[in-house]
Amino acid sequence: MSERTPVVVVIGAGFAGLKVVLGLRKAPVRIILVDKHNYHLFQPLLYQVATAALSPADIAYPIRRIFRKQANVAVAMGDVQVIDLAKKEFGNAETRVPFDYLVVAVGSTHSYFGHEEWHTMAPGLKTIDDATEIRKRVLLAFEEAEYEADEEARRAKLTFVVVGGGPTGVEMAGALREIAANDIQRDFRSIDTKTSRILLVQGGDRLLPSFPQKLSDRAKADLEAMGVEVRLNARVTKVDDEGIWIGDERLRANNVIWAAGVQAPPLLKTLCVPLDKSGRVIVNPDCSVPGNPNVFVIGDAAAITDPATNQPVPGLAPAAMQMGRFVAKIIRSEVGSPTPPPRPAFHYVDKGTMATIGTRRAVADIKGFRFGGLFAWVLWSIIHLTFLISFRNKLWVMLNWMYQYFTMGREARLITGKAELKLHTVRVEQP
Amino acid sequence: MSERTPVVVVIGAGFAGLKVVLGLRKAPVRIILVDKHNYHLFQPLLYQVATAALSPADIAYPIRRIFRKQANVAVAMGDVQVIDLAKKEFGNAETRVPFDYLVVAVGSTHSYFGHEEWHTMAPGLKTIDDATEIRKRVLLAFEEAEYEADEEARRAKLTFVVVGGGPTGVEMAGALREIAANDIQRDFRSIDTKTSRILLVQGGDRLLPSFPQKLSDRAKADLEAMGVEVRLNARVTKVDDEGIWIGDERLRANNVIWAAGVQAPPLLKTLCVPLDKSGRVIVNPDCSVPGNPNVFVIGDAAAITDPATNQPVPGLAPAAMQMGRFVAKIIRSEVGSPTPPPRPAFHYVDKGTMATIGTRRAVADIKGFRFGGLFAWVLWSIIHLTFLISFRNKLWVMLNWMYQYFTMGREARLITGKAELKLHTVRVEQP
Repeated sequence: MSERTPVVVVIGAGFAGLKVVLGLRKAPVRIILVDKHNYHLFQPLLYQVATAALSPADIAYPIRRIFRKQANVAVAMGDVQVIDLAKKEFGNAETRVPFDYLVVAVGSTHSYFGHEEWHTMAPGLKTIDDATEIRKRVLLAFEEAEYEADEEARRAKLTFVVVGGGPTGVEMAGALREIAANDIQRDFRSIDTKTSRILLVQGGDRLLPSFPQKLSDRAKADLEAMGVEVRLNARVTKVDDEGIWIGDERLRANNVIWAAGVQAPPLLKTLCVPLDKSGRVIVNPDCSVPGNPNVFVIGDAAAITDPATNQPVPGLAPAAMQMGRFVAKIIRSEVGSPTPPPRPAFHYVDKGTMATIGTRRAVADIKGFRFGGLFAWVLWSIIHLTFLISFRNKLWVMLNWMYQYFTMGREARLITGKAELKLHTVRVEQP
Repeated sequence: MSERTPVVVVIGAGFAGLKVVLGLRKAPVRIILVDKHNYHLFQPLLYQVATAALSPADIAYPIRRIFRKQANVAVAMGDVQVIDLAKKEFGNAETRVPFDYLVVAVGSTHSYFGHEEWHTMAPGLKTIDDATEIRKRVLLAFEEAEYEADEEARRAKLTFVVVGGGPTGVEMAGALREIAANDIQRDFRSIDTKTSRILLVQGGDRLLPSFPQKLSDRAKADLEAMGVEVRLNARVTKVDDEGIWIGDERLRANNVIWAAGVQAPPLLKTLCVPLDKSGRVIVNPDCSVPGNPNVFVIGDAAAITDPATNQPVPGLAPAAMQMGRFVAKIIRSEVGSPTPPPRPAFHYVDKGTMATIGTRRAVADIKGFRFGGLFAWVLWSIIHLTFLISFRNKLWVMLNWMYQYFTMGREARLITGKAELKLHTVRVEQP
């Protein structure tokens, strides 16, 4: 056993990163956990912040608070820009820090398929700031529509397009429809918010492509029953200030939300190892980086095939958590051991996938048992509460959901940040 | 009775504006309520958002939701830039809307005493965005201090200066001291947050100048017992990126919060009537604008002397609410009446004033009964819950306070918005 305590650096405090650090709580290592933010974010519920159902603090929890009692962890807030595998250092332009083990768990963002300029017109949903920005745009759209005299312009303000038919897109579209059709209708005088169009645009031939076909069909049917227009096999060819092109079709819409594609952060390029077309690191079966056994990439940033099923491991929270625990176990088995055991291969245990479609509706696939409706929604709610970090967040989300279930009220409806309000919205018509 | 329903325009949905609209719910008028934001903000608790105790949605409530069932109100979100008293219109560069009655309830902001350039270094606390900005700065200060190698620079990051010894300043200083001394101390490894300096700088010779002397002394003693440095008769002569000058004394401090002075919004200048030195409209005893009986200015934007006491009416929430109800009553008595009764003069009923100093400590002056400590704090809590708009906000604030009372946890500790994180904060020292 070396006399120096090994330093384990974990970049990213998402699901994968947290599990690594928690898994090393009794290990004889010093851990440095670095994240761009000071909080762990429970991303599966981010769409509920974007749709004014929850507050940011309900689904985010201070990282330092999580590890208050774990003495072997130092938490640092900062933006890591470089990883130097040869020197075993990470850092940025000004500073470098050495590591013995490195775990890169930096997640992924959406991909605009080479059209990064669409970002300002069609924001994605990956951070708290994204969520409050989308919330602002959605709420402003109704405020502006209320006093918009021009019929066509009003229709454009009340048209919401969600691009991407994965879980986030499905959940956003369902929640937007609920806002328009139920929650705020009685708060407006000039417009009927129920007439809002919500479109869900999916490039492939079905929604929720990682789910069984039956549930994809169920999700589409449920969304259509709620009033969402689902467009399959539809490619977005352009986005601008006035709307969106789907193939050759022009659609005037002031609100486009992007939930399509996967792209890993540019930090991974500094590893100088092969990446897949989404920019993810193609890792070894033990999640390590080729040629660098003490450097791991896990979670959404990793491209890995499960040897048991020969399927790619999906970019989902349960897979990230499993990879985190897996890597923690490898490190535990190796530190201080003169003869570390051979490393196993990562195997993803699919305990089930689910997506919610609206209050009281969800679809679930639990070990081949496939179902939808109210029961799936109750199960979805319980599972999400279970996986939220901290008692406080569990309690607050549960109370919010109970309140909403009984009142149908979405009351985190705050337009914050620079509002860029069109001046004409002050025009008050005399009915 | 004229055949046209009179139009009452209310600008501002603060305490004063809301009371006008609520007071006219049965009146035969059409009301237009215009506000820059889409929510009513409960400003007395804004410092709790700035200090990570509450979420924005806990103290803000959608204006449309408040008036959902009041059919004679149209709510508009927009920035009013001009009031034309001669034409009886309000609006902006593009549009004008006529009114029969106008109630201006636009509140006030802090005053930098002619040094507007201090604003970016020393933000005030009047809006939700101000509060999340201050929250970000305070939390970032601790994050940066944790990894700051230079002793003097670290001291500057851990020095917080609150300028202004009114209720907001006293409450902010107390809450900052609680954060540093109790709530987050165990979350840091390199710094002892308890060593943070919190200074409260007051220009006059006592804190809480609108309170009796005895309570001013009590507040000062309580703050000092908590560890806040109180500076009386202290004038801020300069603020820059590195700190603040108090008279000739240079104080390195990276965090300055401004809670001093009163300044009414520039909109009031467009009335072209006499303003006091803070830019407030000097109104008639009935709160109307001289020469314009159907135009009222109420709340913090009005300069008015109580004829009974010959004292200026203070810029406090209870006074604003009383003015709102008073003006609603005048309008009710006049619309549709061929012979309106003569107007009364506004009289402020002082039901008491209170300020909290920290959890379990407050000072109160209720009709001459002056007291502090735990009982004052319990009373302060109950009264603030009572005056919060909406059942949801009362419930959420109460639950948050109960949770904090038992856990001492401030868990809305989110650094949101552009963080402008210094890169060196990623430096992780090897202890």
